[in-house]
Amino acid sequence: MLTANAYAATSATEPLSPMTIERREVGPRDVLIDIKYCGICHSDIHHARSEWGEQVYPVVPGHEIAGVVAEVGSEVTKYAVGDKVGVGCLVDSCRECEYCQAGREQFCVKDGGTLTFGDTDKYGQFTQGGYSTRMTVDQDFVLKLPDTVDLAGAAPLLCAGITTYSPLKRFGAGPGKKVAVIGFGGLGHMAVKFAHAMGAEVTVLSQSLKKQDDGKQLGADHYYATSDPETFEKLAGTFDLVINTVSAKIDVDAFLGLLAVDGALVNIGAPAEPLSVNVFSLLMKGRTFAGSLIGGLPETQEMLDFAGEHGIGAEVEVIGAEKINEAYDRVLASDVRYRFVIDTSTLA
Amino acid sequence: MLTANAYAATSATEPLSPMTIERREVGPRDVLIDIKYCGICHSDIHHARSEWGEQVYPVVPGHEIAGVVAEVGSEVTKYAVGDKVGVGCLVDSCRECEYCQAGREQFCVKDGGTLTFGDTDKYGQFTQGGYSTRMTVDQDFVLKLPDTVDLAGAAPLLCAGITTYSPLKRFGAGPGKKVAVIGFGGLGHMAVKFAHAMGAEVTVLSQSLKKQDDGKQLGADHYYATSDPETFEKLAGTFDLVINTVSAKIDVDAFLGLLAVDGALVNIGAPAEPLSVNVFSLLMKGRTFAGSLIGGLPETQEMLDFAGEHGIGAEVEVIGAEKINEAYDRVLASDVRYRFVIDTSTLA
Repeated sequence: MLTANAYAATSATEPLSPMTIERREVGPRDVLIDIKYCGICHSDIHHARSEWGEQVYPVVPGHEIAGVVAEVGSEVTKYAVGDKVGVGCLVDSCRECEYCQAGREQFCVKDGGTLTFGDTDKYGQFTQGGYSTRMTVDQDFVLKLPDTVDLAGAAPLLCAGITTYSPLKRFGAGPGKKVAVIGFGGLGHMAVKFAHAMGAEVTVLSQSLKKQDDGKQLGADHYYATSDPETFEKLAGTFDLVINTVSAKIDVDAFLGLLAVDGALVNIGAPAEPLSVNVFSLLMKGRTFAGSLIGGLPETQEMLDFAGEHGIGAEVEVIGAEKINEAYDRVLASDVRYRFVIDTSTLA
Repeated sequence: MLTANAYAATSATEPLSPMTIERREVGPRDVLIDIKYCGICHSDIHHARSEWGEQVYPVVPGHEIAGVVAEVGSEVTKYAVGDKVGVGCLVDSCRECEYCQAGREQFCVKDGGTLTFGDTDKYGQFTQGGYSTRMTVDQDFVLKLPDTVDLAGAAPLLCAGITTYSPLKRFGAGPGKKVAVIGFGGLGHMAVKFAHAMGAEVTVLSQSLKKQDDGKQLGADHYYATSDPETFEKLAGTFDLVINTVSAKIDVDAFLGLLAVDGALVNIGAPAEPLSVNVFSLLMKGRTFAGSLIGGLPETQEMLDFAGEHGIGAEVEVIGAEKINEAYDRVLASDVRYRFVIDTSTLA
């Protein structure tokens, strides 16, 4: 076994703390990655605190991982030592079901694949995530990072990036399309960058106009406050696509009202409470309310290549590991522009 | 002015009764139709009783109209005397907006076009529907009926037919696809016939197994009772498309659970109460909850041509006009197999 320095949650209520964890030896098809940066995703907090089901402890969160290849197994063909690589939400899947065969591993019939942390892999080992100095990953679940994006800004592409890119592609964001993004945080700012790069006309729908300048600078053509009821009158029937990045309960009918004929409201946030939908809001313009869940490995690579071409990375605040607990509090207070990324050299 | 014999609602609470109404003279682009049959749609009842907003009285319901051309205006090119024709939910629209230009007149920006009854047309006349002996309609809103379907069975195609055909087409019903239909009534039995003719594997999800024999005979491959909780376990993750024809409140999450990856639940029924949706049901398999509203004129003609090729009409119970009020009670009690159609010769 190899070891790695990490930051782990030891219970649902204790702050995260330093810990040494084990990584498997590099097998024939494995890549050993020296992790350089790892983003802090809101879902890390849900998992660390057992808010999405009881967690096994200790758990090392982190699935927005950017690093450099340190070693490759004897049969590895895709990567070489020194390559800049990433790992997202999945580190394995069954490889055999129709979804794995189609490169949509997030829908793997065996429980949606093996999660990067908090899951049990095929070796029977409990998976531990990216708040750590290194990890061993099957080459098929390693992604090539673009040269044009710095590693810290690239890390959040592995979850926030693909989570926003996938529904924008699926629902046709591009020239001539009007796309709105609800919420301007970690997910929202990525959605704005991607939708803008795809050529869509982009509108941010944020609670206030506080971050309007940032929004315009990162690619938004328009920026409206949802706290202003006039926003909903003014923009009624406007958008082809609305991406909802907010995990809080929203007034679905109000946002459906902003959609044009055939328009889609796509949730990528996951509110704990059920939402109420008036079916007339859907019927009257043939509208759609949909959900989207990360993306498979091929689409994640496509997103990274697209990000590379357009020089798109996340806006990040790089922190040392000792600031993780403080960062969690700030994420919950929406006090980050726009993604915390841990510099894992501070774990050494 | 021309006159026609009709059956009209005179208030929200009185039974419908016989009445003579006016029809406009045949203009250059108009077709005068001798109405032979008119279907009774559940929405007729909602309108007659002011349940979908206050109605102007008297109102003659009916938008599932089948008849024969009696006279054509000087500029009419599309139809000749003696042609079998139909009229659906719309008798006019602005003709100029992007949706009218695209042949999707149901989304006309001017209030969704001119409804066949209970609306005001461009001549300032209050529109009256198909529970009558004749009507004058612009040729562009007249549809050609197939020769292979009898007129009584063809009448419900004009609303129940297009309402089910349109989402089946849009969401890709066809060979290799698994389609479920919730509810086996006027809309449901049409959805089964069309989905079967399109080549899909069709499952009916009805409250009980009471109509199972009919279902199988009309094209269903499988028939399950939703009152049996095992149905939801057994069929979890099965369908590419579920068409919900039921207007009552349903457990949306339970039915979303029946969808495979990328699957869509499409509502064509319009429940008065809002429905509750757990966003995780949408996220976990990239599912969609959508609404669909009739179809435009070109798609309605396409549906009629398709029905003609496959010999598809509604299963009807033909009644005399004097039975309309009784039929309304029976529709509300779901006591009809599967659509009431008024023989308008009884209005003479």
